[in-house]
Amino acid sequence: MSDDSLAPPAAAQPPATPLLDRLASPADLKALTDRELEQLAGELRAETISAVSVTGGHLGAGLGVVELTVALHAVWDSPRDKIIWDVGHQCYPHKILTGRRGRIRTLRMEGGLSGFTKRSESPHDPFGAGHSSTSISAALGFAAARDLGGDPGDAIAVIGDGAMSAGMAFEALNNAGHLGKRLFVILNDNEMSIAPPTGALSSYLTRLYARGPFHDLKAAAKGAVGLLPQPVQEGARRAKEALKGLAIGGGTLFEELGFSYIGPVDGHDLSQLLPLLRAVKARADGPVLIHAVTRKGKGYAPAEAAADRGHARGKFDVLTGEQAKAKSNAPSYTAVFARALIAVAERDDRIVAITAAMPDGTGLNLFAERFPRRCFDVGIAEQHAVTFAAGLAAGGMKPFCALYSTFLQRGYDQIVHDVAIQRLPVRFAIDRAGLVGADGATHAGAYDIAFLANLPGMVVMAAADEAELMRMVATAAALDDRPSAFRFPRGEGMGVELPERAAPLEIGRGRIIAEGSRVAILSLGTRLAEVMRARESLAARGIMPTVADARFAKPLDEEMILRLAREHEALITIEEGAVGGFGSHVAQLLLDRGALDGGLRLRSMVLPDTFIDHASPEAMYAAAAMNAPHIEAKVLEVLGVARIERRA
Amino acid sequence: MSDDSLAPPAAAQPPATPLLDRLASPADLKALTDRELEQLAGELRAETISAVSVTGGHLGAGLGVVELTVALHAVWDSPRDKIIWDVGHQCYPHKILTGRRGRIRTLRMEGGLSGFTKRSESPHDPFGAGHSSTSISAALGFAAARDLGGDPGDAIAVIGDGAMSAGMAFEALNNAGHLGKRLFVILNDNEMSIAPPTGALSSYLTRLYARGPFHDLKAAAKGAVGLLPQPVQEGARRAKEALKGLAIGGGTLFEELGFSYIGPVDGHDLSQLLPLLRAVKARADGPVLIHAVTRKGKGYAPAEAAADRGHARGKFDVLTGEQAKAKSNAPSYTAVFARALIAVAERDDRIVAITAAMPDGTGLNLFAERFPRRCFDVGIAEQHAVTFAAGLAAGGMKPFCALYSTFLQRGYDQIVHDVAIQRLPVRFAIDRAGLVGADGATHAGAYDIAFLANLPGMVVMAAADEAELMRMVATAAALDDRPSAFRFPRGEGMGVELPERAAPLEIGRGRIIAEGSRVAILSLGTRLAEVMRARESLAARGIMPTVADARFAKPLDEEMILRLAREHEALITIEEGAVGGFGSHVAQLLLDRGALDGGLRLRSMVLPDTFIDHASPEAMYAAAAMNAPHIEAKVLEVLGVARIERRA
Repeated sequence: MSDDSLAPPAAAQPPATPLLDRLASPADLKALTDRELEQLAGELRAETISAVSVTGGHLGAGLGVVELTVALHAVWDSPRDKIIWDVGHQCYPHKILTGRRGRIRTLRMEGGLSGFTKRSESPHDPFGAGHSSTSISAALGFAAARDLGGDPGDAIAVIGDGAMSAGMAFEALNNAGHLGKRLFVILNDNEMSIAPPTGALSSYLTRLYARGPFHDLKAAAKGAVGLLPQPVQEGARRAKEALKGLAIGGGTLFEELGFSYIGPVDGHDLSQLLPLLRAVKARADGPVLIHAVTRKGKGYAPAEAAADRGHARGKFDVLTGEQAKAKSNAPSYTAVFARALIAVAERDDRIVAITAAMPDGTGLNLFAERFPRRCFDVGIAEQHAVTFAAGLAAGGMKPFCALYSTFLQRGYDQIVHDVAIQRLPVRFAIDRAGLVGADGATHAGAYDIAFLANLPGMVVMAAADEAELMRMVATAAALDDRPSAFRFPRGEGMGVELPERAAPLEIGRGRIIAEGSRVAILSLGTRLAEVMRARESLAARGIMPTVADARFAKPLDEEMILRLAREHEALITIEEGAVGGFGSHVAQLLLDRGALDGGLRLRSMVLPDTFIDHASPEAMYAAAAMNAPHIEAKVLEVLGVARIERRA
Repeated sequence: MSDDSLAPPAAAQPPATPLLDRLASPADLKALTDRELEQLAGELRAETISAVSVTGGHLGAGLGVVELTVALHAVWDSPRDKIIWDVGHQCYPHKILTGRRGRIRTLRMEGGLSGFTKRSESPHDPFGAGHSSTSISAALGFAAARDLGGDPGDAIAVIGDGAMSAGMAFEALNNAGHLGKRLFVILNDNEMSIAPPTGALSSYLTRLYARGPFHDLKAAAKGAVGLLPQPVQEGARRAKEALKGLAIGGGTLFEELGFSYIGPVDGHDLSQLLPLLRAVKARADGPVLIHAVTRKGKGYAPAEAAADRGHARGKFDVLTGEQAKAKSNAPSYTAVFARALIAVAERDDRIVAITAAMPDGTGLNLFAERFPRRCFDVGIAEQHAVTFAAGLAAGGMKPFCALYSTFLQRGYDQIVHDVAIQRLPVRFAIDRAGLVGADGATHAGAYDIAFLANLPGMVVMAAADEAELMRMVATAAALDDRPSAFRFPRGEGMGVELPERAAPLEIGRGRIIAEGSRVAILSLGTRLAEVMRARESLAARGIMPTVADARFAKPLDEEMILRLAREHEALITIEEGAVGGFGSHVAQLLLDRGALDGGLRLRSMVLPDTFIDHASPEAMYAAAAMNAPHIEAKVLEVLGVARIERRA
């Protein structure tokens, strides 16, 4: 997850890829021999490494599925058959094979290819992603549509073992097993989603192939595909039997849910994969789960050797694997959060932390090192994470539930039903709030203020800088009679001085940053820096806005806001969130109190009503019209200055 | 789910309950012999039936767990040990045993006991509910808190087989199996949640006990509990072995997830349940799942004979089971929706429907009768329901995903990530929008407008009456290039005339209901009737408000709204939803356009910032200050009339 715009390191020569160079579309794979497909896999791997060395991005996951990608496109016919990559971050080899090789070195850049699958990008991406564990549901939808006369073709979901631990994947298996439709699920078991896997399912999968080396399924698979078509009434039984011979690990759990289980198979061995998939394609008449064991980062030593198997990296040197380091001016918000949480936890042993498969991304890996018993990684399971935290709170602990804004959406009902209605003091530490850069629209944290601030009893804070974040961690730690949340963005802090020990904030109190006149700008979150830049520029025109930091979207600092309303001609709110959040609550307050009836001009700057494609965060905020020049323009507009100038 | 305020039918005599009469708290059960506990169960069943005959409510589920309730309280020590009832609608016998017998005939009435478990009601309700499948997560939270020095005691989750099919229950099992903490899950397998069960898990559970009659576990259980304490290093192994002897059905699926599986056991046979639970309590050192087979409605013939096993009923005659029928003036919104959907589906075979375990509640049972292949009940699985619908849409179908507003919260991330970002034409039919009456705060549909209307591309409608609902079904059916949603309340319609065939609405067009002057009231949804009542009353004072029906929360009818703003001194919006929704979007529009700068007074009437307890819907809307008198008062206030009168 790097979108630093540095010069690439000394670029290695692009690899020689004679076979790949000949391919125009995945249909061309059908003309290749199995031996040539193996060569193609090697070229595809080299091309993937080369491309990501230039662009940065998710490397390890793609390298783990190179052979699977080749095999799926060799056996099935995309886009007629729908190949659905769960999460989508492993799709770079798929993009190279499906007509996007020419743009592969624009991955995750503004105007370039998305780092995930995306419907608007290619017909070979039948269902886009970004979040995990959606692929089986989507594939079942395609299969059900097909059987009712919709789009023809097979539906194939490729899902990792980490993603399989999420509840929605189980819901989909449960429904698919019940419906019994022809459907393919490739379980890409790399024992490593982003972090090492956790949970009982993961142990179960390990047991399935821990018994010994892979068996040779080639003969069995060939036998299965070689069976001639049977009379209809016998066909189903024979197909089932033919498939059964391919299951060696057991896979009872999936069988109990109505799937035919096949595997485990070495997901890097095309001489096994190809006959197996051909057999399965020829014979399946219901839902089939193929358990392929792969290695994240496979075939690139620096990735295989890394702790995260090269999950996501910046631009790097292909030969050494060394990453171009962004020069870091300030610690990241994530790191400041982690340190602040550890600091409060040193003084209060009731503080515990919960992450949903993002220990590194949330900084809780540091907390877990210091307090291993007090840190819980529940896996990709946000619904459970929230209610588990509620249970911990009900049991007398002080839980901090650390999630990205976009993933917190998965636990929304649990926030309403288990936390807010019961007024349990769960603390939500919301990372990646606002626009996030290269991960694009699927990962934007645009809605949390709106969906949290209208919950009765909830305290909602947003940090203007990293020192404020420390204070909000202390505030949440001290607030033990109701739920609270604090949000902060992705990336580096402002570089402000950090207090030795942060004191809690008074609940519902904002602060005046700069006194001024005529217009007041009330900021929630890190746009404050842009507001101050706009103020400097406005000063040259003789306009000195008052600037305030709201700190709280809920409860609002009514006294401060009403004073700003009384003492200015205009009031502008700004937040890194969609309409319905902070600005709407301020408007509701001022309207209710009749504060606008006297002619105060109110404006609310929020994220626009569009999904903003991946780019640098700065470019995304420019697209959202939320940088200093936009704030300046809004001030001029609301004061009528621009109009006067235009007339002159 | 009945809160009709009718006189009860000829009340039967309260049953004789000599044992129950002696109990003051669940601790008193410890003094009873097993034989007396059996008698107590009989009395508890009679008392439950008697109480619900007077109050209406969830009957079948409670009757199914009478023996379990007695056994749990006889073996464990509530409130030190935490008994967590999933959903909570089966808790009436539990309430009777835990100090709430005196108020049991106030169930679901204003000021009375909640129909679910509720923390604020009793220390014996350690974790409240209303939605399903949260109990294992909560129980694991209690167990983890205990092991870190929080509240002591055991945590016991009681969860139905239907609730077990939800993803979050699987997430919790997966995490619990991994953590290995002492924890008890009672799987209350009644083969019937609200509707008959669906899904592969349900078939699996059936297979577990389909092999024959229950075995006699009494001797084995007594042996297990009789083992003397072992030296520590041996204890765990012995405990596991002792428990293993109690598993007869297999239960591999749960074993694979790290649980000790015990059962199946007859959940109505106290002579089995008591020794089993005692053994388990004495020996367990990790997570244990006890599979109890019960019968919903057990012991009350009219419930056992009903198709829904007496799931939820109005007041009834105890002797005959006959329910007091509310006299129905108008068809319910649900029924109108179902008929309208069938009507459009007759003309378009791409229309399909999805429900998450609520075929009756959503009216899709009627759709399924007419189009069995085009209706999908996915089980309690809202996350999957939404993405499955997205897959159906991507595959060329026109899916209607019918959910209650409160349960749609479970699929929120999927709405954002799989539907809105991909602009897939999934239609959300949102039933039970607004305040819902006897089911209370957990079931209120307060947030859907806010969390849907800020999603780019989403069309959000709310029906003012049942004829409008028909038009909105037709509108959604015709709108095939983007996602849409329409909401409607619980209960009867207004009784308006229904069109033979409803025409689609123009997207983003509202309608003027009554022309007037000075003040305009812009209504979204069914408060329109209250608005018209307020208008009549205001007419007596010489104030004739303009009244408009917005129809669309998104896209807004900007032309109409700006005209209303221009032509009136004041504009009041009203909606059955929390702040952040329709009113906030109207405010954002008017502020952006500078429409308030000229002195227009804007007010937004929304649900208040509190969770409103169960009562009749009318009483709840009175508490929310959203009935005709409140609208009238708001008009007077915004026009300054009230103030003038007060001065006079």
